[in-house]
Amino acid sequence: MSDVANGEPCTSPLELFNSIAAQGALVKSLKAKKASKDEIDCAVKMLLSLKMSYKAAMGEDYKADCPPGNPSTVSSSDPDATEASEDFVDPWTVRTSSAKGIDYDKLIVQFGSSKIDKELINRIERAIGQRPHRFLRRGIFFSHRDMNQVLDAYENKKPFYLYTGRGPSSEAMHVGHLIPFIFTKWLQDVFNVPLVVQMSDDEKYLWKDLTLDQAYSYTMENAKDIIACGFDINKTFIFSDLEYMGRSPGFYKNVVKIQKHVTFNQVKGIFGFTDSDCIGKISFPAVQAAPSFSNSFPQIFRDRTDIQCLIPCAIDQDPYFRMTRDVAPRIGYPKPALLHSTFFPALQGAQTKMSASDPNSSIFLTDTAKQIKTKVNKHAFSGGRDTVEEHRQFGGNCDVDVSFMYLTFFLEDDDKLEQIRKDYTSGAMLTGELKKTLIDVLQPLIAEHQARRKEVTDEMVKEFMTPRQLSFHFQ
Amino acid sequence: MSDVANGEPCTSPLELFNSIAAQGALVKSLKAKKASKDEIDCAVKMLLSLKMSYKAAMGEDYKADCPPGNPSTVSSSDPDATEASEDFVDPWTVRTSSAKGIDYDKLIVQFGSSKIDKELINRIERAIGQRPHRFLRRGIFFSHRDMNQVLDAYENKKPFYLYTGRGPSSEAMHVGHLIPFIFTKWLQDVFNVPLVVQMSDDEKYLWKDLTLDQAYSYTMENAKDIIACGFDINKTFIFSDLEYMGRSPGFYKNVVKIQKHVTFNQVKGIFGFTDSDCIGKISFPAVQAAPSFSNSFPQIFRDRTDIQCLIPCAIDQDPYFRMTRDVAPRIGYPKPALLHSTFFPALQGAQTKMSASDPNSSIFLTDTAKQIKTKVNKHAFSGGRDTVEEHRQFGGNCDVDVSFMYLTFFLEDDDKLEQIRKDYTSGAMLTGELKKTLIDVLQPLIAEHQARRKEVTDEMVKEFMTPRQLSFHFQ
Repeated sequence: MSDVANGEPCTSPLELFNSIAAQGALVKSLKAKKASKDEIDCAVKMLLSLKMSYKAAMGEDYKADCPPGNPSTVSSSDPDATEASEDFVDPWTVRTSSAKGIDYDKLIVQFGSSKIDKELINRIERAIGQRPHRFLRRGIFFSHRDMNQVLDAYENKKPFYLYTGRGPSSEAMHVGHLIPFIFTKWLQDVFNVPLVVQMSDDEKYLWKDLTLDQAYSYTMENAKDIIACGFDINKTFIFSDLEYMGRSPGFYKNVVKIQKHVTFNQVKGIFGFTDSDCIGKISFPAVQAAPSFSNSFPQIFRDRTDIQCLIPCAIDQDPYFRMTRDVAPRIGYPKPALLHSTFFPALQGAQTKMSASDPNSSIFLTDTAKQIKTKVNKHAFSGGRDTVEEHRQFGGNCDVDVSFMYLTFFLEDDDKLEQIRKDYTSGAMLTGELKKTLIDVLQPLIAEHQARRKEVTDEMVKEFMTPRQLSFHFQ
Repeated sequence: MSDVANGEPCTSPLELFNSIAAQGALVKSLKAKKASKDEIDCAVKMLLSLKMSYKAAMGEDYKADCPPGNPSTVSSSDPDATEASEDFVDPWTVRTSSAKGIDYDKLIVQFGSSKIDKELINRIERAIGQRPHRFLRRGIFFSHRDMNQVLDAYENKKPFYLYTGRGPSSEAMHVGHLIPFIFTKWLQDVFNVPLVVQMSDDEKYLWKDLTLDQAYSYTMENAKDIIACGFDINKTFIFSDLEYMGRSPGFYKNVVKIQKHVTFNQVKGIFGFTDSDCIGKISFPAVQAAPSFSNSFPQIFRDRTDIQCLIPCAIDQDPYFRMTRDVAPRIGYPKPALLHSTFFPALQGAQTKMSASDPNSSIFLTDTAKQIKTKVNKHAFSGGRDTVEEHRQFGGNCDVDVSFMYLTFFLEDDDKLEQIRKDYTSGAMLTGELKKTLIDVLQPLIAEHQARRKEVTDEMVKEFMTPRQLSFHFQ
């Protein structure tokens, strides 16, 4: 399912198996002869890609002593695979044991995506004639697929569009949920392109203990928070799956097209579904994939099938779009490009999970100034020392300090952020001061969001969610 | 998935396994002590029901030496199971080795449905105040589920509606395809109820080597033949899945609801899907199930969820509706009732399959009078003797004679049909005369269909296929 495999869709499982064995031998010999780090990394990356392709095709992990077609024998533990699977990321689980959070460089290798490097950021800056967003400058959007292709199109005045989404699992959204939307609004502004936002209420109905009506009502509540991020009503279409499927001639046709070209074995390999999962979960990935193709929105793009899609999302959503990119050429559509963000850490630390049901795990969009102050002061995991004396002497650790991490997300001023990093690391800045800085940033940010949300009327929501023409220039 | 299991949805696989073992022992002891046929039949029916429930729950056949949870050991051949599985019927395969065709009494036991007996036919006659259709009088519609409940509703002036369908796999329809529609038109007339007709072009796209456009164009062609059966435009809604899914707020919601309540294990057990099947096939059964629930058609039934549905269809479609009936109470909807027909035999005999790609396997709705004559004379399998002399002496066999079978479908006059049966069986009627009688029935039948089809305009098709209010009285 990785890009390596995409180039060779006709590879048989046995050929894949043999390629993995050969590549494994190569990695071992490179390590044995102490080859350069780059050389070994590259070979390991290839090996992992092959293994992911194998798993996607076969629905089970590659096992060195069990060629495809043979019954499973005792599974051999495989050091290279283990090495890369300390962290685990899929759309439902993000697991790491490190207080610094997920190792994103390893994730790039594991997922087969590309790093957003200085060169790409410079190219974006040249293309848009503006300073890149702090999420790009600071590696918060850190990985991509085919972003250069999007820039080629943009520079050639060819149209593209943005697609992002939200699974409305509750009314409560926290600041972490805003990350993709803040960035997507910036992309919409600087590239001046249309945007579609999928509210996957069908997904939440299938996965959670919700009724259809509950899932839909969360869609409507969450839509207000999304609109409050400032999207251009003339260039933005927000849709509930439950509603839009019954209002579009193009959406279901694309869903069925995708569903014809993905097997249960494949979704088993990609998403870990089992025979006990309901058929709704099993077929849902096609619903998340379909908005990647422009003719799912005939009211915006008419019958055009060739308009490039760019998807800004958190990296845990990548499995859906690896599948989408694998299917796209087989049904005659362009592959969507992607921009991946890191995860927003829980207040308790980057290795724990934020939870909508634990109000102290994050800052919610409904929190008061006082709640924000209390939460940061009481719950934000600190990289500081046990006593002021020790802190002054040895300094704090920004790599694990959640307040500092939050500032990298929300403090616009690069110089100020760098100064804080230096001062906290040296011990010149105390934890209380760091937390106060964060509180001073978060309080107005949340208050302003709340003010903007209050201005979002039901009529505006209705208009954003009406299938309609957007301001879009065909080329 | 059978009704027996429906009553006990909480039975664990192991409990089911033990029930089967106990019931198997009972059957053996009944046989050993030469109990009455009725008693043995009843016990076998129960045993088969339990085995079907087991297969539906576990995704694999019951094996006497392999309790659930244990790895599969050598499979034991099981005489009772084998007995009932000489014939095989599912939506894609109908297999029998008998020239008389499928053993429908056994199928009733195997599927857990009920026979349409004289008593039920009499009740229908009393309810409608008319003579029952020849398909009922002659056992062509031979099996049902909950038809008494539909009659209860009808007698209490409670509304119900009809649902039938067609998978448009090609432009060419043959007379066999008309059976459910001829009968459904009669039901619509005598009960004066609305009808929805599903054209499952999404299914045909998923199963066949077709494009979406081809599948949809077959829908439009087949719709004309269906309309030519004489349905009331004020009471009939025909819909293409590919189109209607994008035009109804209620349809997709019901599809998702059903998909949440059916696992891959279950569809594996019911339909024989494998891990290599595409996720479109795996989730499709929910699309065929959804029209069984009245709120899939808000333009007809508004938000009413409680209107009873009656589905006339060939028995091979029953697996879809066993699944539907299993799901219905769990999502708060009434179970659809069913009327099952036998299969229409191929010209070459009841054990062979009609094929749209073999023009000589049936009478097509586009055949000329001359083609009909030639096909019947050349291809209709005969139950006659090798020579006239032998035929006169020993008589013909109506049980395997396809011309006679076709007459039971299309000759309205019971007395005349009975006379033919007697004369052919005694040898008084020769095969040529029998075939001529059939030709004289089929030629005007097809010619009249063609004339009616010619009168079906594109505007009429459009109106039949527009989601709209039908003439329907709420109670």
